[in-house]
Amino acid sequence: MSESVVRAFAPATVANLGPGFDVLGLAVQSIGDTVSVSRSKVPGVRILEITGDDGVLPKDPAKNTAAVAARAVLDVAGIESGLEIHIEKGLPLCSGLGSSAASAAAAAFATNALLGSPLRKAELIAPCVEAEAVVSGRHADNVAPALLGGLVLVRHVDPVDVIRLPVPEGLTIVLVTPSCALPTKEAREALPAAVEMSSMVTHSAQLAALVSACYANDLSLLSRSLVDPVVTPARLPLIPGASRSIDAALGAGALGASISGAGPSIFALCRSARSADRVAHVMTEAFLDAGLESSVHISPADCPGARRV
Amino acid sequence: MSESVVRAFAPATVANLGPGFDVLGLAVQSIGDTVSVSRSKVPGVRILEITGDDGVLPKDPAKNTAAVAARAVLDVAGIESGLEIHIEKGLPLCSGLGSSAASAAAAAFATNALLGSPLRKAELIAPCVEAEAVVSGRHADNVAPALLGGLVLVRHVDPVDVIRLPVPEGLTIVLVTPSCALPTKEAREALPAAVEMSSMVTHSAQLAALVSACYANDLSLLSRSLVDPVVTPARLPLIPGASRSIDAALGAGALGASISGAGPSIFALCRSARSADRVAHVMTEAFLDAGLESSVHISPADCPGARRV
Repeated sequence: MSESVVRAFAPATVANLGPGFDVLGLAVQSIGDTVSVSRSKVPGVRILEITGDDGVLPKDPAKNTAAVAARAVLDVAGIESGLEIHIEKGLPLCSGLGSSAASAAAAAFATNALLGSPLRKAELIAPCVEAEAVVSGRHADNVAPALLGGLVLVRHVDPVDVIRLPVPEGLTIVLVTPSCALPTKEAREALPAAVEMSSMVTHSAQLAALVSACYANDLSLLSRSLVDPVVTPARLPLIPGASRSIDAALGAGALGASISGAGPSIFALCRSARSADRVAHVMTEAFLDAGLESSVHISPADCPGARRV
Repeated sequence: MSESVVRAFAPATVANLGPGFDVLGLAVQSIGDTVSVSRSKVPGVRILEITGDDGVLPKDPAKNTAAVAARAVLDVAGIESGLEIHIEKGLPLCSGLGSSAASAAAAAFATNALLGSPLRKAELIAPCVEAEAVVSGRHADNVAPALLGGLVLVRHVDPVDVIRLPVPEGLTIVLVTPSCALPTKEAREALPAAVEMSSMVTHSAQLAALVSACYANDLSLLSRSLVDPVVTPARLPLIPGASRSIDAALGAGALGASISGAGPSIFALCRSARSADRVAHVMTEAFLDAGLESSVHISPADCPGARRV
């Protein structure tokens, strides 16, 4: 019994988490994109409607991540069908919240469900990487947690090899999005082409220690390991108020804070929801001092991924 | 009651383990260095005798890692005492088995015990790093496992921050040391000064996945994660037969194989002692094909560190 329409939600994600540039991402609660996919007698994948994007996103199925992901799911499943897609953007664009990945993950999940779920959830990662490649490069640290939920380490992209890490109990994430856009391309261009061997060593040790902290439920180690010595320092100057916001978060008791994705959103990890409230307050104050309004989202650090709605 | 002499053993160690360049090391069984330390009325730290080194190692206490470590332990403990040191080298020099670290760790352990153990074992790491710095740079991935035993991740050297990782049950290590020397300095010079950002990402993901594999007891993931994309390829050409030996190990069922420390020893990790026997055989054959005799040592992957003997 195949259905005629499936509507799915996929959450915002914090990629480049701490020292996990390109390889570590986390799904958050409540905010995300919703995509409806239905069968059509017209061949091909078409986007009929996009809401919540202020008319900015392309409806060209070759340039929209939801359509690219849906097309790739059809290809991987070996099924030919016309598809019609409706996208309800819940996430702002270019804000470091994994907006393109959320659309891709929701579309891939809905398409797969519409087809009778021939693919496992993890098998939807590769189609979503194809979608991400269209807009921001071949990385999976947004799409993997957007699909699977939780905290996900991407060992390898081609072929996909991901590991869902344990999340310390009570761990809470604060996401603060200042009212300025930072295109991923610009954030990528701020990165050095190469890093010194000693930086590579420090960076890898930080990421490895962070993984260890998750398994060992060691919040002190988690705190020491969240500092990224390479990518974050290169990008912070692109975001007004970001350094101050991070310092304020740490001063208010956050375990760590850094740029979410390619920015400009800043995240902080906190040991409890109560701590997160205090941290969110000082972070928004710091952005205000830099002349920027910001929006705040607080979420448990261990949240589900793509699902039907 | 202070004793007049303490004799301690510290094991050989496999540093630079897989993608863990400068940050991941493992203690092995049975082979190592033994150091005796006794009080002396003559001020300062003196080396009275070194055996097993063919007269190669310096007796100058400023240049010998055992003496430097002993001196540093006195300093950290804030105790002044004349010390006399006897070193029994069980490990060959310049072979990638952590020879200098074993002497340092045994001397630090013996000195601390002689003083009535004012320092905890982990507090002996920093003194041993001072010793390593004299001969091969400020790294702790030999001295930390030589002291603590097991598999140790070095998050940070100054100040010392190390994490003992769980070791999958039954995991066995094969160490093959070909009859050629490779000074650490030469091996260091083979490294690129800088690496591309994409290599840093791959490298950090491999190390993080390896740590995850240890906690999750996932031997398949361990196997995929042991490949080092940066350091090992630069050094393999310096060791005749090394590539063939690694390929042979993998062909015979090893989970992974790479250079031990700065080489020329090659290690392989195997799922059992029985698998290790097969792997050791093909690895020595591969070195023979390259015209090199080699010695083999097989050990559990989870072994104790420095101790009294």
